[in-house]
Amino acid sequence: MSQTPTIAVPPQKILRDALKDVRPQEEGDQAYEVVEALYPICRSITGDGVRQSLRLLQGTVPLQIREVPTGTQVFDWTVPKEWNIRDAYIKKAGDRIVDFQRSSLHVLNYSIPIAQRMSLAELRPHLFTLPETPDWIPYRTSYYREAWGFCLTQTELDRMEEGEYEVYIDSTLEPGSLTYGEYRIQGATDDEVLFSCHACHPALCNDNLSGMTTAARLARLLDGVSLRYSYRFLWIPGTIGAITWLARNESILPRIKHGLVLSCVGDSGPFTYKRSRRGDAEVDRAVEHVLRHSGNDFEVLDFTPYGYDERQYCSPGINLPVGCFMRTPNGRYPQYHTSADDLTLVTPSSLGESLFQLMQVVQVFEENRPYLNLQPKCEPQLGRRGLYRQMGGIKDAAAREMAILWTLNLSDGRHDLLDIAIHSGIPFHQVSTVADALKEVNLLRPVE
Amino acid sequence: MSQTPTIAVPPQKILRDALKDVRPQEEGDQAYEVVEALYPICRSITGDGVRQSLRLLQGTVPLQIREVPTGTQVFDWTVPKEWNIRDAYIKKAGDRIVDFQRSSLHVLNYSIPIAQRMSLAELRPHLFTLPETPDWIPYRTSYYREAWGFCLTQTELDRMEEGEYEVYIDSTLEPGSLTYGEYRIQGATDDEVLFSCHACHPALCNDNLSGMTTAARLARLLDGVSLRYSYRFLWIPGTIGAITWLARNESILPRIKHGLVLSCVGDSGPFTYKRSRRGDAEVDRAVEHVLRHSGNDFEVLDFTPYGYDERQYCSPGINLPVGCFMRTPNGRYPQYHTSADDLTLVTPSSLGESLFQLMQVVQVFEENRPYLNLQPKCEPQLGRRGLYRQMGGIKDAAAREMAILWTLNLSDGRHDLLDIAIHSGIPFHQVSTVADALKEVNLLRPVE
Amino acid sequence: MSQTPTIAVPPQKILRDALKDVRPQEEGDQAYEVVEALYPICRSITGDGVRQSLRLLQGTVPLQIREVPTGTQVFDWTVPKEWNIRDAYIKKAGDRIVDFQRSSLHVLNYSIPIAQRMSLAELRPHLFTLPETPDWIPYRTSYYREAWGFCLTQTELDRMEEGEYEVYIDSTLEPGSLTYGEYRIQGATDDEVLFSCHACHPALCNDNLSGMTTAARLARLLDGVSLRYSYRFLWIPGTIGAITWLARNESILPRIKHGLVLSCVGDSGPFTYKRSRRGDAEVDRAVEHVLRHSGNDFEVLDFTPYGYDERQYCSPGINLPVGCFMRTPNGRYPQYHTSADDLTLVTPSSLGESLFQLMQVVQVFEENRPYLNLQPKCEPQLGRRGLYRQMGGIKDAAAREMAILWTLNLSDGRHDLLDIAIHSGIPFHQVSTVADALKEVNLLRPVE
Repeated sequence: MSQTPTIAVPPQKILRDALKDVRPQEEGDQAYEVVEALYPICRSITGDGVRQSLRLLQGTVPLQIREVPTGTQVFDWTVPKEWNIRDAYIKKAGDRIVDFQRSSLHVLNYSIPIAQRMSLAELRPHLFTLPETPDWIPYRTSYYREAWGFCLTQTELDRMEEGEYEVYIDSTLEPGSLTYGEYRIQGATDDEVLFSCHACHPALCNDNLSGMTTAARLARLLDGVSLRYSYRFLWIPGTIGAITWLARNESILPRIKHGLVLSCVGDSGPFTYKRSRRGDAEVDRAVEHVLRHSGNDFEVLDFTPYGYDERQYCSPGINLPVGCFMRTPNGRYPQYHTSADDLTLVTPSSLGESLFQLMQVVQVFEENRPYLNLQPKCEPQLGRRGLYRQMGGIKDAAAREMAILWTLNLSDGRHDLLDIAIHSGIPFHQVSTVADALKEVNLLRPVE
Repeated sequence: MSQTPTIAVPPQKILRDALKDVRPQEEGDQAYEVVEALYPICRSITGDGVRQSLRLLQGTVPLQIREVPTGTQVFDWTVPKEWNIRDAYIKKAGDRIVDFQRSSLHVLNYSIPIAQRMSLAELRPHLFTLPETPDWIPYRTSYYREAWGFCLTQTELDRMEEGEYEVYIDSTLEPGSLTYGEYRIQGATDDEVLFSCHACHPALCNDNLSGMTTAARLARLLDGVSLRYSYRFLWIPGTIGAITWLARNESILPRIKHGLVLSCVGDSGPFTYKRSRRGDAEVDRAVEHVLRHSGNDFEVLDFTPYGYDERQYCSPGINLPVGCFMRTPNGRYPQYHTSADDLTLVTPSSLGESLFQLMQVVQVFEENRPYLNLQPKCEPQLGRRGLYRQMGGIKDAAAREMAILWTLNLSDGRHDLLDIAIHSGIPFHQVSTVADALKEVNLLRPVE
Repeated sequence: MSQTPTIAVPPQKILRDALKDVRPQEEGDQAYEVVEALYPICRSITGDGVRQSLRLLQGTVPLQIREVPTGTQVFDWTVPKEWNIRDAYIKKAGDRIVDFQRSSLHVLNYSIPIAQRMSLAELRPHLFTLPETPDWIPYRTSYYREAWGFCLTQTELDRMEEGEYEVYIDSTLEPGSLTYGEYRIQGATDDEVLFSCHACHPALCNDNLSGMTTAARLARLLDGVSLRYSYRFLWIPGTIGAITWLARNESILPRIKHGLVLSCVGDSGPFTYKRSRRGDAEVDRAVEHVLRHSGNDFEVLDFTPYGYDERQYCSPGINLPVGCFMRTPNGRYPQYHTSADDLTLVTPSSLGESLFQLMQVVQVFEENRPYLNLQPKCEPQLGRRGLYRQMGGIKDAAAREMAILWTLNLSDGRHDLLDIAIHSGIPFHQVSTVADALKEVNLLRPVE
């Protein structure tokens, strides 16, 4: 009865156009600025450092900050006490010779408080160094055993003489909550794509400020695009965060169709993809295909139950199709888990290029489907539909014609576009483009 | 009541004996003579050149010439107008500087008629050359877009000066028919083996006078042999001919058990087999096995939807087990689709050797079947049946004994003789021979 | 009502502990001593030589000696007449120039008796040599065709001049029986593991005094160990012995879960495993896995129907999961089936090492089973169960932790421990050890 008012809705971009508009270098520059801002914050698996980091990422994308109380049972685990730290140092003769204010790595992550004077011999068991790289500070944690300690360079340790040291850690380990960030973009269906990154490491840039900022840029790029899938992004503390999220969202899991853990995506090494436990999930084939056509070196590894939160997503009772997208993987670069994983290890262009490859993977998710050739008996006459060169005898069919022939030949209901791209060696986006053209002339229809 | 008269039927040879009688070199010589006779005829996808060529092949085998009227609907296509040409030239000052009488390649195949004087600038867009091989004439067609043109060498083009040219093509493009050749040999069953070759190219010897003549020789050799399968041979215009035949013979298709497209079988390159779309059809395994034991280099390629008429036989709605048997494949030799694919590129011995390999493939089709070991518990005592050397301890079992042991071991109803040959690495004909011997002593029986 | 008397039963060792106690070098020394004792005895497929050899092996393990009468029908075969030999020679001018007393190889095995004078020309067709290795005596048999002959070195033959020779073979070929040895250890279940070796060759040490003595040592080691499977050992004449045993024990065959033929296990070559006909039986995967982690070179061959008694065990109507465990295989070492396969070709350490690898294979049989992860949703918290290092951030997880993570991840009911070991590349015994530890803390339970 009443007249529906006309509302001016800004038309949504489709993904293919959004992809054309991506400027990887600018994206990388933006991501790198956030890496710089996040670097000084002392993060851990709980505490204000995480909250502060998530608030900073809200400048990129309006993610939600979730709190889960200490003591909450999550599968076989319990959400731990919340850890916060304000200051920490070792003083000798009044001078701070190891100073948390200079690097959050200097304190053993999750150290209990201490304020005490002691001899070097007493202090020594609480000091951690890397003798082989004497100018780098190691990264150490003690989440589940109450302890205190300091990490320092071997050079600093070698300079420490006998005498009395003042040891001070102003930390608290008290009931509080575990904090994580979540952002969800609603697509045309409730089927979901999951991107997850660990947000618990302190001053380590590649591991994983790179993943945190790239995930945020990716979310920002997909926001406002017309999407088939819904997209969920998680910034969570490693292990306990993934376990907490999974335990609290079991009903969602059947809807997660594809997923990627993002970590170490900012260094200049070649791409590395670690397959999901399933090994042949669509995400596994999609990422390998995209990297194969990326023009970059890359490596594909089989799933192992060690690494990042794919350990949880791919545990046997969860078994989601979630792989891990990296450049140089954990443990394979010397700066890993040391103070040398700093702002010089990560570059804006590497961040931007990682983002660009991820967008291409998203394109596969969005556009991949099986089609049915509606003229399956012999080739249809493409020439009269303007889809084939008119003059015969030329030595090689053009690339577009090959994409058309492959797409027609394999669109028998048993192959989707990604199968066709992999089988033919033609980049997915070309196959997907000709599928659209063939659909327009009624030679293909999507299989429901 | 009436007495049946006794008719003297000449006893038919079995294939194995026919194969022993094949003299590849003589066969190749015979085929080459027909290549020479076919070379000057201007063929196209329709017209008198095809008819004349098929009549010439009737000298080898009494094939039938079929006509399908212009305008007939064949799947997504329509049989085109018939093209005939009597003469064509470009004259300058009264001299034929490009002359169809010297080579049928000089005219753009399917050119519409023209008789006109024009400047070089007007003529130029209708001239086709190969700048990189300046003494070769290219092969060009324009079947489905009405056009006219000439093909010539770059050297000839470079000599053409400004001035007035007389351009003349005495062709007709009118309702008529599409012509193809067909020959069928009835075997013990109606299950068929298909050999198909394109017969539409003008003065190109390897592509495909080689295939046309080899198919005819093969048909002649199989004629009069006692065969298990029926054999059908097609000499058809590329693409439209295969589509026309398939559209008019859909009811036959379920009976086609194996098939091969023959093309480029006359050059001296190694054999190339391109698998059927199915990839693991019996023809695919048979050809690969035969080539592996041929003593020649060979290459096996996966199916792609580009090439010869396997494109149609292997379209998703037809999907016959048809591969493509070649020496150097289309596009991989420099003379491909040029005037250099001439009588020097093809040799009698290459033609003869191609024929010999095809006969061995036919032997696999004819003799391959699964058998059942009738003494499957432990080895039967071969010695008392005269099938095993009597003295033990000798270091290596002879090849024949190995063939016997493999055939007994794998004749469990799940492997046919070709499986056994492939698995054991023993040539099929040896496995088939010992299977006969084992059948005679009641150690094997064919599985129905 | 009546009181059950307390019987002092010596507690049985478990296999893992038995394995720790094995001293390969001592075992090899013991085996080698028996090889030396067996060497002079003239064995054949029947006769007193076999009986004498089996009685000698009873010094290692109390095997039972079985007799099957001549003429017994066994599948397609008949147990042959029993052959015995006391003496044989060729005399020239009263001198024994070829003398059975010096080597049992000198007589064609299964020769019928002869006592005759003849010229060299008459004798010549009955003499066998190896011209290429002129100082080695060949090994020849004529079990199923009545014949007589002598084997000698080419050098000896070359020295034989014209003249009269006295030829004497004091043998008998009469109704009697076929003799074999059998030993069975009862385990917790009636499911069986079969070890079989041929015991019919005369003075050939690697082929197969090595297998005969190693089988006996293995039986002795397993005796008194608490076992899951029952273990059956066979010392049988090649071919006819295996056929005889199989024909008389068909009802047992379904209970044979794994089996190995042992032959040529005493030379210094790398290990060779020839797969069962099935190709992917547990025994195939177990032996390959054990050899891969043995620190030795090794080769794995696919099944072929030639070799040792795996020919019978893997005939299509029997098709047991029986592979063949060897060092250098039959026919691949020059001394094979010659007098050079003597006491110098076999070494105690090779025998001992073979035994050790076999014990590890037995360990896989005994301990392999699928388990179910009882906390399959995410990783369980290993730290509070004392199964994980307490301090995080360390670059590499220790090997034990990786074994724990793999075992938990793949214990989904579809993988057994051997699958997990193969997939992860971790030695089986490590996976099996952590599975026990996980079972103790209720994280795993065996799948029934």
